[in-house]
Amino acid sequence: MKQRTIFFLSDQTGVTAETLGHSLITQFSAQNFRQMTLPFIDTEDKAREAVLTINAEQEAGAPKPIIFSTLVQSECRVILKEANGLHLDIFDVFLDPLSAELGELPSYEPGRAHGMSDIDAYMKRIEATNFALANDDGGTSRDYDVADVILIGVSRSGKTPTCLYLALQYGVYAANFPLTDEEFESGELPPFLTKQKEKLFGLSIEPERLQQIRKERRAMGKYSSAQQVSFEVRETNKIFRRYGIPHVDTTKFSIEEISSRILDSTGVERRVRP
Amino acid sequence: MKQRTIFFLSDQTGVTAETLGHSLITQFSAQNFRQMTLPFIDTEDKAREAVLTINAEQEAGAPKPIIFSTLVQSECRVILKEANGLHLDIFDVFLDPLSAELGELPSYEPGRAHGMSDIDAYMKRIEATNFALANDDGGTSRDYDVADVILIGVSRSGKTPTCLYLALQYGVYAANFPLTDEEFESGELPPFLTKQKEKLFGLSIEPERLQQIRKERRAMGKYSSAQQVSFEVRETNKIFRRYGIPHVDTTKFSIEEISSRILDSTGVERRVRP
Repeated sequence: MKQRTIFFLSDQTGVTAETLGHSLITQFSAQNFRQMTLPFIDTEDKAREAVLTINAEQEAGAPKPIIFSTLVQSECRVILKEANGLHLDIFDVFLDPLSAELGELPSYEPGRAHGMSDIDAYMKRIEATNFALANDDGGTSRDYDVADVILIGVSRSGKTPTCLYLALQYGVYAANFPLTDEEFESGELPPFLTKQKEKLFGLSIEPERLQQIRKERRAMGKYSSAQQVSFEVRETNKIFRRYGIPHVDTTKFSIEEISSRILDSTGVERRVRP
Repeated sequence: MKQRTIFFLSDQTGVTAETLGHSLITQFSAQNFRQMTLPFIDTEDKAREAVLTINAEQEAGAPKPIIFSTLVQSECRVILKEANGLHLDIFDVFLDPLSAELGELPSYEPGRAHGMSDIDAYMKRIEATNFALANDDGGTSRDYDVADVILIGVSRSGKTPTCLYLALQYGVYAANFPLTDEEFESGELPPFLTKQKEKLFGLSIEPERLQQIRKERRAMGKYSSAQQVSFEVRETNKIFRRYGIPHVDTTKFSIEEISSRILDSTGVERRVRP
């Protein structure tokens, strides 16, 4: 049988439709889907084109497509209903009750989510990203006074992508500092870290996973040896205990999960919302 | 009147609930909301705690809370229904029709979206992030042979955050190269770029906006002068025209929108999905 296609339709980026759809389809084990995002459907012509794309699927003998849709303009919505498929549309089901509760009609204007409605939020995210870059991996800046959080952990424990995600998604100022032989030998953190102790947050990781990740980078040598990796993980955990640093085990978590757990655990406020 | 609170409830990160809720509430002009994310509600105790938090709102005289919920575990869901508020729950409305169409019961297991269900996707995002960092701002690596896309534009046109977002969100390998006096004087791109012409994508920006952004960085001097900014924008657009480089005006777009437009325009395939 031909693959089933999941369409994500949007008059904007498609991020909302994809996020929603992904949450739902991961509830099912059947994962043999083709996924296709059709973003920026903001004219009737583009809506008609999307209908043709979707209907071509079934004419080719594929199972009924699943259509996650987040368009708001009614002219485009009417056209898209002609597409053959299972329509799952957040505006269909949630807009009316929300409107009734708020006592206000929706604007039906596209593009206010993930848009530039808030220049201030855009600037905050950019500035937080620049902060993360300047304060990455022990960093050139060490502007720890203005940091919201300072992540510490061994090389490849996920510090850099987590800091960047915290910046881009939440506008949070996240620095990171790698723990290396210097800390492991003394068992101590440098003074510029201990004086920011309340901002420190640790990323721990299981040795097997760390070795696997490091081997992707450098297959041979001490860096990715079982012995070295175990040593670093053990010493890192000692440091976390010694200083009472809250930490999260990144072994089984995605970047989103690590980031959410850091905010949840530290109480650091997001400066912007998605 | 007291502020209304919008709650985002999740047994995982809350990213889906926040994304969904944000799309819906931006349809209304009333924006005097307090927003609160309650993530990782994965036990009955945590669900009861969330109910107390939500119900405390109304006891304090605030308007009925709006509750965006993406929990899947039925024990927790039952408890949360006791919270006073307008419940908007994607699993309530979409899971049954999806289950019927797929001919399969949902797993009701939390944490498969934004989770580590796919280690391979995690590694791809990390590798794409490392690629973006090594190939940022003209970069140390210039691994342009393996790039999916190479962004070009003036300083502060949004190249770096866009490359990082493309990496973190989609696993796309995005490099970027800044256009400077060298290119403006000759009107030419360097050979290492022209031989990758099909991968080039331009970020343009209106001079007023560019000046505003640059002033945040350096208030005085040539860098943020009206004259310099106009010159750079004009010369950049000439280069885009001369080489026929597709481009997007970043002035009014968010990082998500710029990224989506790049994928849409270039046809670059995402390596992972959110």
